[in-house]
This record gives sequence, structure tokens and C-alpha cells, in this order.
Amino acid sequence: MSIEKWVADLKRGDRTTLARLITLLESTRAEDMATAKVLLNHFKKPTKDTLRIGISGPPGVGKSTLIEKLGLKLIANKHRVAVLAVDPSSEKSGGSILGDKTRMEELSRAEAAFIRPSPHRGHLGGVTSSLPGVILLCEAAGYDRILIESVGVGQSEVELSKMVDVFTFVTQAGGGDELQGIKKGILEYVDLILVNKSDRDSALVATSCQQYLAALKIVRSQATVPVLPCSALTGEGFEPIVSFLSSQDSHSIEERRKEFFLSWFDSLLAEEFRRHLKQNSSWQTKLGELNQKIKDQATTPVEAVDVFFKQIMKL
Amino acid sequence: MSIEKWVADLKRGDRTTLARLITLLESTRAEDMATAKVLLNHFKKPTKDTLRIGISGPPGVGKSTLIEKLGLKLIANKHRVAVLAVDPSSEKSGGSILGDKTRMEELSRAEAAFIRPSPHRGHLGGVTSSLPGVILLCEAAGYDRILIESVGVGQSEVELSKMVDVFTFVTQAGGGDELQGIKKGILEYVDLILVNKSDRDSALVATSCQQYLAALKIVRSQATVPVLPCSALTGEGFEPIVSFLSSQDSHSIEERRKEFFLSWFDSLLAEEFRRHLKQNSSWQTKLGELNQKIKDQATTPVEAVDVFFKQIMKL
Repeated sequence: MSIEKWVADLKRGDRTTLARLITLLESTRAEDMATAKVLLNHFKKPTKDTLRIGISGPPGVGKSTLIEKLGLKLIANKHRVAVLAVDPSSEKSGGSILGDKTRMEELSRAEAAFIRPSPHRGHLGGVTSSLPGVILLCEAAGYDRILIESVGVGQSEVELSKMVDVFTFVTQAGGGDELQGIKKGILEYVDLILVNKSDRDSALVATSCQQYLAALKIVRSQATVPVLPCSALTGEGFEPIVSFLSSQDSHSIEERRKEFFLSWFDSLLAEEFRRHLKQNSSWQTKLGELNQKIKDQATTPVEAVDVFFKQIMKL
Repeated sequence: MSIEKWVADLKRGDRTTLARLITLLESTRAEDMATAKVLLNHFKKPTKDTLRIGISGPPGVGKSTLIEKLGLKLIANKHRVAVLAVDPSSEKSGGSILGDKTRMEELSRAEAAFIRPSPHRGHLGGVTSSLPGVILLCEAAGYDRILIESVGVGQSEVELSKMVDVFTFVTQAGGGDELQGIKKGILEYVDLILVNKSDRDSALVATSCQQYLAALKIVRSQATVPVLPCSALTGEGFEPIVSFLSSQDSHSIEERRKEFFLSWFDSLLAEEFRRHLKQNSSWQTKLGELNQKIKDQATTPVEAVDVFFKQIMKL
């Protein structure tokens, strides 16, 4: 099938095509990567009136339930919702133990929703490498609200925060040591904090919100980051969330997306370098020799890198 | 001061020198990176009779308390203990909100312990780039048990698991949905699972242990991974942990460290490429132009990468 046909099918919102093209983007086979490049060049124009929302937070705080509830609210407001998951923790088999679709039963049945489980990738490119393209494809297929769930607190969060228009951190009250769940680094990047499970103990949730606001005050002197209590279980507190999301200023989104493109470019450079390392057969031979020398303790990784860049790449 | 003097001071266990040299390794200044290379070439011989223990798990499960207790037990057994933390979540200011030293009060006062707070790094190299060198320095300074705490569940965990001899996952019982705290990816790499807070509800902890064992059986058909209950608060259950650690086979450690060196080499290649990108002024000029074009929407990141590799690097 031709790429033009794929693009046409995608633009009229064909879900099977969308799923297939995402798989193409996630592939690490050399020919797929070449096709993916040609495909992505069909989506140069910036997408308007879409919103990319990153949703992060430690395991067990109810991110999936929250995403389902939020997705349903957005659909009720005439949006089309794509849910993506980034889960860089599994190199071998990928994905969480519980599948994403089973965790979002109602949303997965909605016609206006597209749910994509975690990709099966694992190299260092991680979050950055295929996600930007996947976002562009979902938007081209007519989904105007892209929810991206991320598991864990780490480097992948920082990367995700650069790829979205609104980076949300989900936490819950209780356990005493509230701020353990969020790292200072996240506070620097977050655009919205949601304290989930407000149905359990509203006083505790209120205290928790105040603690986050206090921490934000220290770390971020200028930006105003809302800290909102909610209950993904009962649906309580979702109106302020939805209205915060719809109040995002289009100019600042545009600026942010320029940064997103620059950061994508930066990660593609490293990715492309890795691809060249893999594909250049004379480099591969030399790398094989260096690996063997390292194994035999005839050289160290630090020395071997020097040898490779000076002798092979002539840099 | 000469590198030879540093190396001599380090080898007689001088803590100030160790701290200073770690800072050197963590520096991203070009001249520091050059000095660091020369320094690391002094530590080519493989270190024997040391054990590198990675300790990972979601926030709030009591990792710091557990590390303190474990560190004190190891010191009681005549070991010298270095505690390192990897926290890749903060790009700007680095580190957790609570300092590591304040969380390990008793251990930090012990003469046989060296505690190093989270490094202030944030680029994609993340965990991999400076940690291997830091481990070598700690071992050269006479610390034979290296405990490396990692926050969060993500790519950094996979990287850390490759750098240590024993990769430990800490969790706690309770909350119902036990397996949410651990991802399938972690199960594939873990060497030891500790279910903390056994003082709270021993029946719940036992159930939790069984659930992890059942999950391990599915994911890992061959390897035997112990799942041990413990209480970092009371010290209960630490004897089996200490005896598991001391029973590690030196041949398999040696094999594992060869893999560690290969994986370090792999990450150094990407790191060195980034360093060249930064330092080559004609590349910088071209990258600046491409960045501007991307901002102006005159090109896309995917196209720009092609241009850079074909026209500039001539690959």
C-alpha cells in the first residue's frame, strides 16, 4: 500500500490505519525507520486546537482511573480523545502487568476514544524517540485531546514534560510523608498537580494540597501551578480540571511546541547516531573488537571510546 | 595538585579526596571531563571482594531506612559501606527534597560509611554516565559494599540493574493492588525482592511475598529470586538478607561485571557523541541554523536530522 493511501485513510480517522502506522513508528527495523521518515514528512503543518496532556505520578495513585474519567468528561464536551502510555521500564517484553485497555473499560468502548497500550521499546531513546510522531499521527486522525500516561518518577518524566502542553502530576493524600511522592525536579516542570482520592479523607487531601502549594512556592517563584483535589472514583473535582485545561492560552502552546520540536530534534540526533553505529559494518567490526578487548580486560571503556572516536570516526 | 597525588590519597581512604574526585566525575565541563578520563585510567584492575547492590522501589516504601539498617549491619560485619543515590528526575537543581544524609542519621555518623547525596546531573546520559566511575573510586578508597539507591520505576532502573551485582527491589505490603508497585520489566532484572514494613501486618506481608513469587514464576522460568519480608524499622528479617548478599558467587559477579563494562562502553559512546556535538564549532553553527529553521517551521526535526548526518557528518 502506498504512503499516500495511508495518509488519506489516517486523515479520515481510520483507527486500524492509525494503529498500524503507530506500530511502524515504533519499529526499530531499518526499512521501517526509513518509511516512518517519509510518512512523518506528510505532517509538517502545525496542528491547531489540540491539547497534549502528560499525566505522571507514582504507581497506585489511580492514574488509569483518573485518565478514564477525564477522557469521558472530555468526550462529553465533544472532544475526541487519544490515550497513549509511555512505560520505559520493560526492555524485554514491555508493558505493565495489567493491560491499559482493561484498566479503562468504559473509555475503551467509546467511539471518540483511541487507546494505545504501552509500546514495546527499550533502548535509551525511550520516551522521546517515537512518541512525538505518534502524537502527530493521532492529531492527524482527528483526536484533539491527547492524554499521555507515564509510569514512575525519573528521567522519562522530564522528557515527557517537554513533549506536552500541560504536564500533570497525580498524587494522593495520606501516608504522612506527602512530598516523598514528588521530586523537586518534577515541581520545576509541572503545570498542574492533582491530589486524587479526595473521597477518602477530605481534610487530609486539603492539607496535602497546601503542602504542595508551599513546596511550589519555594521552587517556582513566578509560575502559578494549580493544585486541585479530585476523586477519580466519584468524579468529584473534575470541573475545575476540565476548565483549567480548556483555558490554556494558544500563544503559549505554540511557543511550547517550538521547544518541543527542538527537543525532539536533539533526541533524534542521538537516535540517528545509534542507528549509524548499528548499520555501518566497518564500525561494527571495530566495535566488536573493542568489546572483546574490554571483556579480556585489555582496555577500559573510557580508553575504548577514545580509540573509537579518534581512530574510526576521525573526530 | 597532581593526579598521582589524588590517586594516592584516595587509596589510603581519604574521604575529602573521594568526595572531590566524585564531583570531578560528575562535572560536564570539558576540561574536567578530560581530567576525569586520565583519572579513571588509574583504576584498570578489576576490584575483587566488593559487592555492588542496587536498591530500587517506589517512593514511600522505606528505602532510606532500609539502606541505613542494612548499612549498619554490614559495618557490624566488618565491611566498609558507601551509599550512592541516583536521582535522574531533576534537571535544574537536582536531588530530593529531603537530603540523603538527614534520612540516614546513624549511618552517616559511622566511620566506616561514606554517604554521597544525589548528583546534580540531568542530561540523557543520566544514571549511566558518571556512576560507573564513582563506583570504581569508592572501591579504590576501600569501601567494599556499595549501596546504590534509585528513585522511581523507569528506564533508570534498567540501567542501574546492569551496573550492580545484586539488583534489589523494595516494596511494601498493603494497599490491595500489590503488583502495581512493580513493573514486569523490573521482574525480569531483579535479583532480590524485599517486602518492607513486616512489623505492620505479617499476614499481609506473607500474602504479598507469595504474590511476588507467583509473578516471578511467570516472568522468570529459570532464575531463583528470593522474596524476603523485613522491617527496616525493627531490624527484623535482615539476617537472611545479609546472608543472601554474602553468598553471591564470585564467578558470576565477574561475568556480570564484564557485561557492566560493555554496557558502560555503550553509554559512553552516546555521551561522547553529545560532547562532540557541543564542542565542534562548525557543527554548532550548523545545528544553530537547523534549530532556527525548525522554529520558523521551515523544516521538521526528522528532515533536519537527515540534513545534519548527510551534509555535515557525511555519513
